[in-house]
Amino acid sequence: MIIVQKYGGTSVGSVALIQRAAERILACKAEGHQVAVVVSAMGEETDRLVDLARAIQRRPDPREMDVLLASGEQVSIALLAMALKERGCDARSYLADQIPIHTEAVHNKARITHVETERLHADLAAGVVPVIAGFQGVDEHGNVTTLGRGGSDTTAVAIAVALHAGECQILSDVEGVYTTDPRLVPEAQLVQRLSFDEMLELSSQGSKILQIRAVEFAAKHRMPIRVMSSATRGTGTLIAAEDGGMEAPLVSGVAFNRDEAEILVTGVPHEPGAGYRILEPVSSANIEVDMIVLNAADSGRVDVSFTVHRSDYEHALARVRDALATHPACAVVGNDRVVKISLIGVGMRSHAGIATRMFAALAREGINVRTVSTSEIKISVLVDEAHFHRGVTCLHEAFDLDQPPDRRPPMPRGSPVL
Amino acid sequence: MIIVQKYGGTSVGSVALIQRAAERILACKAEGHQVAVVVSAMGEETDRLVDLARAIQRRPDPREMDVLLASGEQVSIALLAMALKERGCDARSYLADQIPIHTEAVHNKARITHVETERLHADLAAGVVPVIAGFQGVDEHGNVTTLGRGGSDTTAVAIAVALHAGECQILSDVEGVYTTDPRLVPEAQLVQRLSFDEMLELSSQGSKILQIRAVEFAAKHRMPIRVMSSATRGTGTLIAAEDGGMEAPLVSGVAFNRDEAEILVTGVPHEPGAGYRILEPVSSANIEVDMIVLNAADSGRVDVSFTVHRSDYEHALARVRDALATHPACAVVGNDRVVKISLIGVGMRSHAGIATRMFAALAREGINVRTVSTSEIKISVLVDEAHFHRGVTCLHEAFDLDQPPDRRPPMPRGSPVL
Repeated sequence: MIIVQKYGGTSVGSVALIQRAAERILACKAEGHQVAVVVSAMGEETDRLVDLARAIQRRPDPREMDVLLASGEQVSIALLAMALKERGCDARSYLADQIPIHTEAVHNKARITHVETERLHADLAAGVVPVIAGFQGVDEHGNVTTLGRGGSDTTAVAIAVALHAGECQILSDVEGVYTTDPRLVPEAQLVQRLSFDEMLELSSQGSKILQIRAVEFAAKHRMPIRVMSSATRGTGTLIAAEDGGMEAPLVSGVAFNRDEAEILVTGVPHEPGAGYRILEPVSSANIEVDMIVLNAADSGRVDVSFTVHRSDYEHALARVRDALATHPACAVVGNDRVVKISLIGVGMRSHAGIATRMFAALAREGINVRTVSTSEIKISVLVDEAHFHRGVTCLHEAFDLDQPPDRRPPMPRGSPVL
Repeated sequence: MIIVQKYGGTSVGSVALIQRAAERILACKAEGHQVAVVVSAMGEETDRLVDLARAIQRRPDPREMDVLLASGEQVSIALLAMALKERGCDARSYLADQIPIHTEAVHNKARITHVETERLHADLAAGVVPVIAGFQGVDEHGNVTTLGRGGSDTTAVAIAVALHAGECQILSDVEGVYTTDPRLVPEAQLVQRLSFDEMLELSSQGSKILQIRAVEFAAKHRMPIRVMSSATRGTGTLIAAEDGGMEAPLVSGVAFNRDEAEILVTGVPHEPGAGYRILEPVSSANIEVDMIVLNAADSGRVDVSFTVHRSDYEHALARVRDALATHPACAVVGNDRVVKISLIGVGMRSHAGIATRMFAALAREGINVRTVSTSEIKISVLVDEAHFHRGVTCLHEAFDLDQPPDRRPPMPRGSPVL
């Protein structure tokens, strides 16, 4: 089977780590696989380069920034290819324009349009390990482009898709995806398997293991991703298309986001366009809105609340207040001391009692829920920041996520969630 | 006029130096010139990368070494282009494969075969400063190649020749070429103008200002090179085709080489092939030989002496001793405590008294000359290491090189040198 392995910056951050990565590649090859490797820049190299650029130009030129940053992966591919050769394994480094990995003609956040595979297939057939620079591409004019931070994940998935690989392995300093952040809840368990949708929710909720674009790309092409540690031999977490047969392990994890702020508008006349009138000034200022909840309060009035990133909070609040200045009946209240906690799980909505159990657990801890929103695979609640730790921990326990998967009691089935 | 400026590693070794280089480029542009820039890697970056490679592979793979080292210039071109843009000057960085700068398919020491100029001419016509990565090229298969240490000089000359530039300026931390090493002889004077041949002799004799290949390339295409400081505003040293009219300033400088060792073979039968028999074992071991002197001693015997690099001394000595083991009449003596001192000057051989004055000066200091060799523009002597400093100083004085050029007395004319 063809396997694409991606080594992140923390997995190639020193000579010793590069040598460990080479050993790991050899072990995968020894199992009979054909291995192509994608590499990020060494450890803190990208930060160092960004600092240099900022010392020279207040707003570094986007084209030149890409030329600068792409040098980071150039170093790591050469060194890793040398480490493989030193161990008697034939290897060959490739810059993006040598593959080529074609992208749009956009700097700093280009999207991959096409990956050519002729040289890669020739290498794999000859037992050579191609070692490919992640994060970078080449546009139609021959300019160096980059894919944005974390873009090496996207490169790895794109190479895996192009090569029709059996699996794309993302190796870093984490063992895999956990039921929640183990730094917060020591009882958190490694998740063996997740659907792409669940992983997308976990990524966007703050489990910064995999770049969202890479997961979307993999989901679109149904390319299985395995997140695993480059330091240990665990099998990590497999992220793959939803297994039609699986019904039992319902709740995969508890995600959270501490970067949100809430804006609540009360007393809005309940008429068509009410939501629009409130959100338009925010979105037209290019401020991203996350949760949106609209409740008809009483007699012709509604309350609308939504959340934005904390860095946009003051700006969004001012925009809404300005827009509603001529509506004295409306009150605008903000709160940037909130956190969002989410329960993630495939098919959650069609199973009974999830929300009930969730609210019961929070209530037992005396935690007030400010806002709720739901999707097919997620229930999110907004709570006061002060309740953050207890909120995550009580939900993690309430759904038996602190137990190994085979010891978790089955969920009751029946009526819908809410 | 089109001017190519090359900034060496010591001229772009920090953010402050890159900014100074940008100012310098702007000043040249403000004089009405079209400027193309070639840049080396920042300061000690190349050494850092070489150390990384050696820590990973005992003999770093040549192809991967080129990929690794080429990242150094990639950083400096991007940063210099940013510095120019920050000052309102339109600029654009180019990697070798974006020009392209084509080379042979040889790693670590490739030769440039062809430079395309379409993009560069378009930039110059539009007032854009192209900032080109020195030292690197691309072969016919799209592999990254490098030109060997100091290769950025060669890149600069090649770009200048391809663009039909008026001058190729090499900016570094030296003011230009001196009559001898100013660290050794504080009275050394800056040379205003040198012929290519003189510069070649000075380069190979140890004045490590310009890569020999770059000078050869410039000489072949009669491209004037100006060696100048990136820190000061002096006009440096112009190295150009010999001015037909110039006869007067005969001796340009005193060069030296402290890395040589001498091997003397006495009592060799004076017959055809005598020199061959002695030198063949050395050259077949890929040891480079510098001075070669053959003297018929007496009655059918000759003495042959030659010099090699000190690092090859033991090896060369052993090879010669082995080869002559069956010739008991031959004696082999080595001496690695010698230095070569050379007088450099155009048309030296056809002018009178140079060697006479040279030997007289050395004799006054009690310095014994072990070996002499001459060329069109050079007389070299081999002396004991102990006499090195006095030898250089007395020759520098004897030819009035401690005086500004216009205060030097003219040379007597007449009989040939020796």
